[in-house]
Amino acid sequence: MKSHQKTFPEGEVPSICQVMMPRDTNALGTIFGGVILSQIDLAAAIEAHKHHPGKLVTVAMDKVEFVEPVFVGDLVSLFTRTVSIGRSSIKVGVSVWSQRRFGSMERIYVTEAEATLVAVDDDFKPTPIQRSCEYFAYDSDSSQGKA
Amino acid sequence: MKSHQKTFPEGEVPSICQVMMPRDTNALGTIFGGVILSQIDLAAAIEAHKHHPGKLVTVAMDKVEFVEPVFVGDLVSLFTRTVSIGRSSIKVGVSVWSQRRFGSMERIYVTEAEATLVAVDDDFKPTPIQRSCEYFAYDSDSSQGKA
Amino acid sequence: MKSHQKTFPEGEVPSICQVMMPRDTNALGTIFGGVILSQIDLAAAIEAHKHHPGKLVTVAMDKVEFVEPVFVGDLVSLFTRTVSIGRSSIKVGVSVWSQRRFGSMERIYVTEAEATLVAVDDDFKPTPIQRSCEYFAYDSDSSQGKA
Amino acid sequence: MKSHQKTFPEGEVPSICQVMMPRDTNALGTIFGGVILSQIDLAAAIEAHKHHPGKLVTVAMDKVEFVEPVFVGDLVSLFTRTVSIGRSSIKVGVSVWSQRRFGSMERIYVTEAEATLVAVDDDFKPTPIQRSCEYFAYDSDSSQGKA
Amino acid sequence: MKSHQKTFPEGEVPSICQVMMPRDTNALGTIFGGVILSQIDLAAAIEAHKHHPGKLVTVAMDKVEFVEPVFVGDLVSLFTRTVSIGRSSIKVGVSVWSQRRFGSMERIYVTEAEATLVAVDDDFKPTPIQRSCEYFAYDSDSSQGKA
Amino acid sequence: MKSHQKTFPEGEVPSICQVMMPRDTNALGTIFGGVILSQIDLAAAIEAHKHHPGKLVTVAMDKVEFVEPVFVGDLVSLFTRTVSIGRSSIKVGVSVWSQRRFGSMERIYVTEAEATLVAVDDDFKPTPIQRSCEYFAYDSDSSQGKA
Repeated sequence: MKSHQKTFPEGEVPSICQVMMPRDTNALGTIFGGVILSQIDLAAAIEAHKHHPGKLVTVAMDKVEFVEPVFVGDLVSLFTRTVSIGRSSIKVGVSVWSQRRFGSMERIYVTEAEATLVAVDDDFKPTPIQRSCEYFAYDSDSSQGKA
Repeated sequence: MKSHQKTFPEGEVPSICQVMMPRDTNALGTIFGGVILSQIDLAAAIEAHKHHPGKLVTVAMDKVEFVEPVFVGDLVSLFTRTVSIGRSSIKVGVSVWSQRRFGSMERIYVTEAEATLVAVDDDFKPTPIQRSCEYFAYDSDSSQGKA
Repeated sequence: MKSHQKTFPEGEVPSICQVMMPRDTNALGTIFGGVILSQIDLAAAIEAHKHHPGKLVTVAMDKVEFVEPVFVGDLVSLFTRTVSIGRSSIKVGVSVWSQRRFGSMERIYVTEAEATLVAVDDDFKPTPIQRSCEYFAYDSDSSQGKA
Repeated sequence: MKSHQKTFPEGEVPSICQVMMPRDTNALGTIFGGVILSQIDLAAAIEAHKHHPGKLVTVAMDKVEFVEPVFVGDLVSLFTRTVSIGRSSIKVGVSVWSQRRFGSMERIYVTEAEATLVAVDDDFKPTPIQRSCEYFAYDSDSSQGKA
Repeated sequence: MKSHQKTFPEGEVPSICQVMMPRDTNALGTIFGGVILSQIDLAAAIEAHKHHPGKLVTVAMDKVEFVEPVFVGDLVSLFTRTVSIGRSSIKVGVSVWSQRRFGSMERIYVTEAEATLVAVDDDFKPTPIQRSCEYFAYDSDSSQGKA
Repeated sequence: MKSHQKTFPEGEVPSICQVMMPRDTNALGTIFGGVILSQIDLAAAIEAHKHHPGKLVTVAMDKVEFVEPVFVGDLVSLFTRTVSIGRSSIKVGVSVWSQRRFGSMERIYVTEAEATLVAVDDDFKPTPIQRSCEYFAYDSDSSQGKA
């Protein structure tokens, strides 16, 4: 997943994949952008949790460009990769694809984003990442994370 | 559904994977069983759509046993496989796993189910499956479906 | 309610009755099967609570067959009866009917299911049913349940 | 609405009955008043539909007093009766009761309301009630409506 | 805002303003009345909180008349004013306007209501209002509240 | 976006203001970032609609930094201003503030963002902005937009 060449990452395990429902639509009848942004936020947290099992909060999301709309019935997949790990922060790349399940069945590139998450304690103060080889070891996506 | 021997299907692409949120809880504070049953229904439809791009309705769900509760913050993954394809119906096996993201990070076997979907026309009358090699060909899970 | 002869149980008090809204639809525009399964789960818990006021979890749901679709605006009614009570488990039968409020006003048989619930303590370990005559005594459905 | 003397209408079929979930709570942790008001609105429409199968809109709701809070896990029942039927409007009385399912199992009187609905055509203009004896005839609550 | 002369309160800061989404619709495709009643309840609480930072519960809502329907995509604004403050209760007036964002952009008067809230302690017993000049002082709407 | 110097824009009319509810929380109990991103998306559309009453889609959102968490019960206000208007695109700045309603009543700066929206036709192809003085004229925020 090194460069997001807009080729669907066949066989790769997504962090989130979900069917879009009518309750996810905006006033135009397409899927509400906020729903996609919400899934990006959650997917980034899933990736970051592989490195730190404690509390993590999203502190930033880089520029997001929406290339294609998403429709009701589409299967949206979010693929993530760890970009970098700092003392208490983790940067995660997320790419979003949508499969037109009630049309061509084609998988369309929707958008990508980079989110920065910070490990926090119970008072929401930054705390060091408990970087654990264990999580790397048993998690199926770990090879990407290391690459 | 013997092929899933309660070993997490490492590296396999799930049909649905989603983080459980507080809005998904029941009065006990655990994830509402209806949320899991809803995801099983959606996952079965995703699998069946690989064989038939038109309208599909779930007509039956076999006995479901919930082995473990699911908690807020868990990452729930639903793996599907095509059990059999009839003239207008498709039987799909679904297994559900939950990762304790705010605990051991362990992946727990939750339940499995078999759902039967029927291809229908615009009047919701059964219609033949448009069984298409094409969908088999490009979909990453197709090898399971064929086995 | 002894045999579910597909005759609407006129005058019987349902455990749940609710109007279906647009937010409950699937990509086909009919009511999402997961919504009905969720209501079955809740209705079974209402019935089981008549025998045990503490925590109950659904551990199994028998085969469910969906006979008719449910539409937006339908009034869905779920009738329940206690099938059997064990040391720590209760089996509940649920039948689901839908009234076409924006059509014939007819009440359509949708499906039925049997759910098994287990009384649990705070650690989600099975605990004996606190079978209380009192709940039978004052609850309006108890006479039906016994019939 | 004097006929409801704060005695739970044992054996009467409610228009709506539903379990309250965590997603229905307000910032205080009790059930959000808006959820109860929403159910009153829906229950009034169910009652009015017995007299007119077409489109109905709520044009007014009389003063509502909330006597008791509703809690997560409570089973809320809404009982309705037809107060009066005009040329194009129907007045419906609604009483709301809540059963403390995780406590005394007692049924608590919560509130009552009177809603006025108007039959409308496709342009939302008032249209005469299609008062049909048929609906009265087969509906189990009709005796109340006539009283 | 003394008399609700049905002139949009240009420049006044609403307590709530929100876009209506497809998930807020009823079976007729317009915005569900319960959604508007929910927003009235929340807006009244926002106004009352200016006088009392602790827990407040809505104990009554005066008669509400819905003058116009609200549509998907409309921007609904709720303006509030403090009507009176008693020992432990606060009466709040709420007026609701809807802007037809996918039509004339006109702002339509929808309804108004008066809600009574009571300050409560942790056991939901009435407690005196902690009437604080401070809240009046820094809040931008306070001048209206006093007028 | 220098003009918002982190001083709450007292007296300015927000595009969206809404109370955060328990259903908006993430697994940590604070408000889910996706909820805030969703509101930013909607607020930007409200601002852009002042210049173009037709269909608008969000095509990009610039980097967002979350400075403070948002809590259940907080009143979140989103202020918008038009940054620039192109042939078929509009750039909108959004700033987000949260009032701790169950605490200090203080208004906390949460984040700001810039969203780019594009006017589209029924096939979601870019179409020219129908820039209308009229919308500027009657809208209360227009002076900011011009500044």
